Amino acid sequence: MRLRTVLSGDGGSRADIRHDGQWYATTAADVGALLRDPARPSQPPPDARPAPPGRAAPVVTAPSKIVCCGHNYRAHIAELGHRTPEFPTLFAKFADTLTAWDADIALPGPAEEVLFDWEAELAVVVGATLRRADPGTAQAAIAGYTVANDFSVRSWQRRTPQWLQGKAFDATTPLGPELVTPDEADPRDGLRITCRVNGDEEQVGRTDDLVFDPATLLSYISAFTVLRPGDLVLTGTPGGVGIAADPPRYLRPGDVVETEIEGIGLLRNRIAHSPTEIEPASRDGKETR
Amino acid sequence: MRLRTVLSGDGGSRADIRHDGQWYATTAADVGALLRDPARPSQPPPDARPAPPGRAAPVVTAPSKIVCCGHNYRAHIAELGHRTPEFPTLFAKFADTLTAWDADIALPGPAEEVLFDWEAELAVVVGATLRRADPGTAQAAIAGYTVANDFSVRSWQRRTPQWLQGKAFDATTPLGPELVTPDEADPRDGLRITCRVNGDEEQVGRTDDLVFDPATLLSYISAFTVLRPGDLVLTGTPGGVGIAADPPRYLRPGDVVETEIEGIGLLRNRIAHSPTEIEPASRDGKETR
Repeated sequence: MRLRTVLSGDGGSRADIRHDGQWYATTAADVGALLRDPARPSQPPPDARPAPPGRAAPVVTAPSKIVCCGHNYRAHIAELGHRTPEFPTLFAKFADTLTAWDADIALPGPAEEVLFDWEAELAVVVGATLRRADPGTAQAAIAGYTVANDFSVRSWQRRTPQWLQGKAFDATTPLGPELVTPDEADPRDGLRITCRVNGDEEQVGRTDDLVFDPATLLSYISAFTVLRPGDLVLTGTPGGVGIAADPPRYLRPGDVVETEIEGIGLLRNRIAHSPTEIEPASRDGKETR
Repeated sequence: MRLRTVLSGDGGSRADIRHDGQWYATTAADVGALLRDPARPSQPPPDARPAPPGRAAPVVTAPSKIVCCGHNYRAHIAELGHRTPEFPTLFAKFADTLTAWDADIALPGPAEEVLFDWEAELAVVVGATLRRADPGTAQAAIAGYTVANDFSVRSWQRRTPQWLQGKAFDATTPLGPELVTPDEADPRDGLRITCRVNGDEEQVGRTDDLVFDPATLLSYISAFTVLRPGDLVLTGTPGGVGIAADPPRYLRPGDVVETEIEGIGLLRNRIAHSPTEIEPASRDGKETR
């Protein structure tokens, strides 16, 4: 089964279910809300009509928790010169960090200052409440998988020992285009994950190269904090990031980044100019996303 | 003005306003919801009746964002042997990390394994939406101050380069008892901040010893992510944490920790046994807090 979230014409959003090659609308505001509904349908009702078109939105728009794992692909760990870790390195993002799978990503400053880098990632969407769960229980609680790019502002990430400020710029993590349920795609089978910049393949890996697989990560995280339906776990990036190139390479306005996982989906994001060149500092009650 | 959140008898929660030495109930579910209400009252209506009693809850129960600063008191930086930082070291917590100002704090494992430590902190509650705000704008957007203890599981915090997993155990950060508005307490005046364990003063500092003051932190954070009314910023801890003692000292079941900031308030938390000794791993839809 596949699920997606789209922006509806009324300024809200809506979860859709795919069935027999066609999308059908649900009454849920996003895939997260659909997963939290105890009576969630596994297919559209018999009288459902095809969903009207809508603009792309992140698969989950308002997760209560986004936990990300760094240093998880063996090849990426090797390119950074690290040893295989005993424990997953975890950090958080905010719901505001997410953006649509086809969104332009605005550089948060001049390209030569912010050092904006790509990180193709497999994202796991939680489907049940997990608290101190063993890996088997965690595996059964995976609602599905989608694609993310953990675009990182290296200049801010490296300012201090903690990465958050380089990883949590608003609207810099595209997510989508669809949630794919575990019966349709299993990362343990070694799905090909790639990141292309202007058509050149910069990252390539396989999802069975993960030190900590999705179920292990969910189990580990649930030892310290509850995970709920619609929460998101990002599983780390394979080798080939810009900062590890010699010399390092970073993104510039106009670059097009394609992030793809075999059998799951493709993100396509254009890098845009810094908003600080066109928007002044502001204090207001308006939301711009 | 002072605001608080209490658990109401119906299983929900409620924000109260203090006026003329008496608490009055509002219709808001917590102080965060009260701050998000554009028509929020600055005092109770003339016909208001005193609030019924209620059990303690964190001042804000559902912030969309909690950002914490490490290495911010000059004395604490010195005890760790670090240099004065150029940028604030930031990490996140989750709403689930919060607990009431008088709650028992359950050790997340045997005391000798988890190495549970205290960190008295000044907490800032955001009162207006901030996006790329200058420090003056950020200062004007501070709804008020309250007290937190960033209790830390040192054994998990030090497992990897990122601190999140040691800082985000559910229900380990007490917050309260009240929000105090900036006209009643100003950290720039050098308020005394202390942490006592079983009556012994372990930490003492003054809030004018901060490298990055509240307005500077809010401004800095708003450069990468929007802050909204009810969001929370923790400003770091002064010298005297257990891990920096020689030999290091950690908390054990039965210890009582009092965290106090002059003119703002006092937390009193008893350390309790590990829940893992009495609760099995579970996957369910029930919430236990």
